[in-house]
Amino acid sequence: MAGKIAILGATGPEGSGLAGRWARAGLQVVIGSRDARRAQEAAAQLGARVGAKLEGADNLTAVAEADIVVLTVPFPEVPSLLHQLRSAWKPGQIVIDTTVPLAATVGGGATRVLGVWQGSAAEQTRELLPKEVQLAAALQNLGAELLAGDQPVDCDVLVSGDDEQAKQTAMELVEKIPGARALNGGKLENARIVESLTALLIGLNIRYKVHSAGIRFTGLPKTK
Amino acid sequence: MAGKIAILGATGPEGSGLAGRWARAGLQVVIGSRDARRAQEAAAQLGARVGAKLEGADNLTAVAEADIVVLTVPFPEVPSLLHQLRSAWKPGQIVIDTTVPLAATVGGGATRVLGVWQGSAAEQTRELLPKEVQLAAALQNLGAELLAGDQPVDCDVLVSGDDEQAKQTAMELVEKIPGARALNGGKLENARIVESLTALLIGLNIRYKVHSAGIRFTGLPKTK
Repeated sequence: MAGKIAILGATGPEGSGLAGRWARAGLQVVIGSRDARRAQEAAAQLGARVGAKLEGADNLTAVAEADIVVLTVPFPEVPSLLHQLRSAWKPGQIVIDTTVPLAATVGGGATRVLGVWQGSAAEQTRELLPKEVQLAAALQNLGAELLAGDQPVDCDVLVSGDDEQAKQTAMELVEKIPGARALNGGKLENARIVESLTALLIGLNIRYKVHSAGIRFTGLPKTK
Repeated sequence: MAGKIAILGATGPEGSGLAGRWARAGLQVVIGSRDARRAQEAAAQLGARVGAKLEGADNLTAVAEADIVVLTVPFPEVPSLLHQLRSAWKPGQIVIDTTVPLAATVGGGATRVLGVWQGSAAEQTRELLPKEVQLAAALQNLGAELLAGDQPVDCDVLVSGDDEQAKQTAMELVEKIPGARALNGGKLENARIVESLTALLIGLNIRYKVHSAGIRFTGLPKTK
């Protein structure tokens, strides 16, 4: 797997965690943000912490340069971001949607998800992207606290999508995170279930007073 | 934990699996069915297989005798069953709802769930039960194939509900199944997420050509 990965929203904790993990794994990472200066500062700080070089750019520039674009902005910001990016996409680019329609993103409870007309955040993203861009939904269940350090995670990552190449790429990216196992999550519509799992994990974190509840699936073959 | 457990629908594979596990653990189990004769035959067969004595009765009789009632009938049969049972309940009885509104139960896809007006099968059940009866939702993610044998399962079981005593009882019953760890799944509304997980597990079974995908949560404290 080659190419440049733009992580939009990587000035936030989730995107920053992914950026750090992938930069440490030797991948080319660009941090995207509304503000180029802020993105560059975040890239420099994160690069110093993980011992790797990252770039920073405004979202449009980041997307224009990238082969893979990862969405880590809060759910309510996705439609306007994708509207702003609508002329920036190039055929063959791959988008990985990690967003979750948590009710907390609009002031609701941390353990609930919003109803999304299309069925899930990922299906909404699919509707807002041009057809020439491939989409996979992944990484919704890996919390920022798990990604922050350099410890291996103890988690499976379901990758859902209707575009095989995007799924394959997302699964390869997932397995660059130590400890993470990528699983074929089936069609994009399954993101409905995977996204809601994040709310369940937040509830477990609250009830069990931890910060890093994760998920593993049992009974699967050893080889994928 | 004491008392008699009536499992309604235990002539089917899921209920039969639970009946076998709990009878083997020394609990008093009554298999409930529409037809008393069929329930008695199933109880005798299962008893011979697991080396324990089980009873069989029609649903009304089973509920009248039970301290704990476990629903394992297919989702579309729940409303009429609860309607039929409406005069049979006694205050203090505990109901454990294991049902999942799989689309397959009405001829749809195996990897999808139906929309339920109340939010979940369990919340619908709550609406159809008298207030004096306590409810917990649990065991939706333990497949019949996993329950069929006597091997330990490698699965966590989320127990959701708004009635503390029912949750506690359900958690104790879960831990009578070797290998199963009961987890506090929070409020009854979380059954929405837990039920949909069953559809996800069925999808993993299909994609990975296995029959016993299960779920474990990581990052939780060792003691509950």
